[in-house]
Amino acid sequence: MTHAHGLSIDDALALIAAKIAPLPAEDVDLDRALGRVLAEDVASYLDVPGFDRACMDGFALRAADSFGASPYEPVSLTVVGAAPAGHASPPVGPGQAVRISTGARLPVGADAVVPVEHVEVRGGRVRLVAAVAPGKHVARKGEDVRQGAALLEAGRRLRPVDVGLLASVGRARVRVHRRPRVAVLTTGDELVAPGQPLPEGRTYEANGALLVACARAGGLDARRAGPVADTREALGAALDACDEDLVLSTGATSAGPDDVLPELVAARGELWFRGVDMRPGHPVAFGRVGARVHALLPGNPVAAWVCFHALARPALRLLEGEPRAAALAPRLRRPGRLAAKVTSTAGRTDLVRVTIDDAGAVTPLGGGAAALLAASRAHGLLRVPRGLEGLEVGADVWVEVVE
Amino acid sequence: MTHAHGLSIDDALALIAAKIAPLPAEDVDLDRALGRVLAEDVASYLDVPGFDRACMDGFALRAADSFGASPYEPVSLTVVGAAPAGHASPPVGPGQAVRISTGARLPVGADAVVPVEHVEVRGGRVRLVAAVAPGKHVARKGEDVRQGAALLEAGRRLRPVDVGLLASVGRARVRVHRRPRVAVLTTGDELVAPGQPLPEGRTYEANGALLVACARAGGLDARRAGPVADTREALGAALDACDEDLVLSTGATSAGPDDVLPELVAARGELWFRGVDMRPGHPVAFGRVGARVHALLPGNPVAAWVCFHALARPALRLLEGEPRAAALAPRLRRPGRLAAKVTSTAGRTDLVRVTIDDAGAVTPLGGGAAALLAASRAHGLLRVPRGLEGLEVGADVWVEVVE
Repeated sequence: MTHAHGLSIDDALALIAAKIAPLPAEDVDLDRALGRVLAEDVASYLDVPGFDRACMDGFALRAADSFGASPYEPVSLTVVGAAPAGHASPPVGPGQAVRISTGARLPVGADAVVPVEHVEVRGGRVRLVAAVAPGKHVARKGEDVRQGAALLEAGRRLRPVDVGLLASVGRARVRVHRRPRVAVLTTGDELVAPGQPLPEGRTYEANGALLVACARAGGLDARRAGPVADTREALGAALDACDEDLVLSTGATSAGPDDVLPELVAARGELWFRGVDMRPGHPVAFGRVGARVHALLPGNPVAAWVCFHALARPALRLLEGEPRAAALAPRLRRPGRLAAKVTSTAGRTDLVRVTIDDAGAVTPLGGGAAALLAASRAHGLLRVPRGLEGLEVGADVWVEVVE
Repeated sequence: MTHAHGLSIDDALALIAAKIAPLPAEDVDLDRALGRVLAEDVASYLDVPGFDRACMDGFALRAADSFGASPYEPVSLTVVGAAPAGHASPPVGPGQAVRISTGARLPVGADAVVPVEHVEVRGGRVRLVAAVAPGKHVARKGEDVRQGAALLEAGRRLRPVDVGLLASVGRARVRVHRRPRVAVLTTGDELVAPGQPLPEGRTYEANGALLVACARAGGLDARRAGPVADTREALGAALDACDEDLVLSTGATSAGPDDVLPELVAARGELWFRGVDMRPGHPVAFGRVGARVHALLPGNPVAAWVCFHALARPALRLLEGEPRAAALAPRLRRPGRLAAKVTSTAGRTDLVRVTIDDAGAVTPLGGGAAALLAASRAHGLLRVPRGLEGLEVGADVWVEVVE
């Protein structure tokens, strides 16, 4: 099943989202959970802190004992022991104090902490020159997290602070979606691996390194396959050798006689679409063979890179378990204002490589579908919508920041 | 040598930048270069494309032959062969055309390409219904990159598209700075590893998982050391066992009697500063032992996390080889407008956890130095400058986006 040309990027994303389900869940050690997408709602099975806890190094006391203390009428308390963090301590009676460390449980009888910097310690006594309110420098049991509180929702991609939060409630393992395994399959008889001598009429292969790096920037490892020769047999054999969850191919997806990849995918499974009204990237196609998703990207490196951002990365995020809205949205956008006119053609979405400065000025960069040098100068992509023939100087725009 | 309290964050960063030199350079395979910082200026030793190159699948021809072609007076050319990418092709004479693939070298005699979609092919002839300009659908030799052109500068952190660019000019290896090895040394008798039973009065250790994740989010691996007991002997032995380039410790750096880490570092090397006028994070200290940098972060998890972003990450970036200005600046900032008042205390910089929505509305989140739950809701940090006692609703602010 192929779709006619005329698909918008949004149409293509809708087809991708309708076809891709998250990969199964698995339990992993917390130290391996960073960047993974949660497959469970996490609630806390305990209070944090688990007890009334000192937030400062100092002295635990009964706040009422300090009332009325001033530099003129200091209050003196007897130090009856110490409460180091993680250890037992004596109780605090009237007129008494206990030396306490940050993180230690408040001794029985005490209801406040006075920091060591605010008191004078002499012999076995501590002298206060100001009153302390009950609860001062004490974190109450459950103040940060209440037992049963919802912490993190399924579908969330775990950030460092989320990992810390999970540790703080005692989680050593967490349920996340399996990560997609990725293959990068480049095609083209003209391609030569970097580092090798370059014969006349041949070109160094950039797409393999580029797309492996794109996958790795998203935390995914990718196997290199290719460059594969431009023959139906070689391409078919290369497809059949893939057992990854998603195959990023480049080239052999346009209108030429050697552009047989879409047919080969269709013959083995189904083609979801071929051709999207975007520039660069028009020849892009998607489909599947069994459970394996095929992202057929164009051969021009910048077009492949743009299609990765606009279509393949959302597909990977869906496999990783992100909810549809999060998976399809650009990760990070910055508002700005166009510093130069952009011309486009109605009927297709242009993805223009742009810079954006601190003041929000957005400047389009030149360069065609092959010009990696211009793309490497870009901070992000600016979409010129299908219905417009361009954008004027001063237009308010969003820039999709690219890593 | 210790510095008195009263240091601003900028003072602390200036000390860090004055003390830290980039790690030595090494050559790595391009596939391992993503995220590394270049230790060489890269220029191209070849033209890209290396020859006049077809940008479309179609027919190579002499543009002059097409002049005057129209639907009423089509021009017909004889197809004399094919130019597949990476292979030799026959020359194109007057009245002739050669079938050509994207990426192929333009045959001798040809000066333009007409896409296959725009012509009618019948028998051995191709029929044009429109004129083609010389140079159409041809990328000129050196059009993307001129031999000798500067591509990437030393000090640049390599993004995926940079890796592609390096591959496109034939680079299989690249000179980058060595990555810092990191240790995460947590301290505190009260700490229990996540997954273990939690005795009364004890707390799950969040800082280890949190800081390993912070390092990993920056592409660095980190060794876990600790939790180490709160004794001078245990802490000294743990310090002496570190041979990493940077040690992130948490706790034992405040004003209490057990807070001996700054002294232990000073005794073995030098302390650059102890105490920064910031909240959270005031007890933070930095120093070195031999070539090893010590970032002594506070024990409260949110304070440790904020100090990682504000001070330790810049230190890591300097070790990684980023130039001073790039290393000390927040990676990514978004402009916004405060949706609620923020109060602070003059004389210290507050780093407030905030959310920012698509419209740029910035909302401060509650929670103290231990409240990871509130921090996990934050999109970024907002700095309230030292000289101010707060920020009013509607103030224009920058949010430092955190991963």
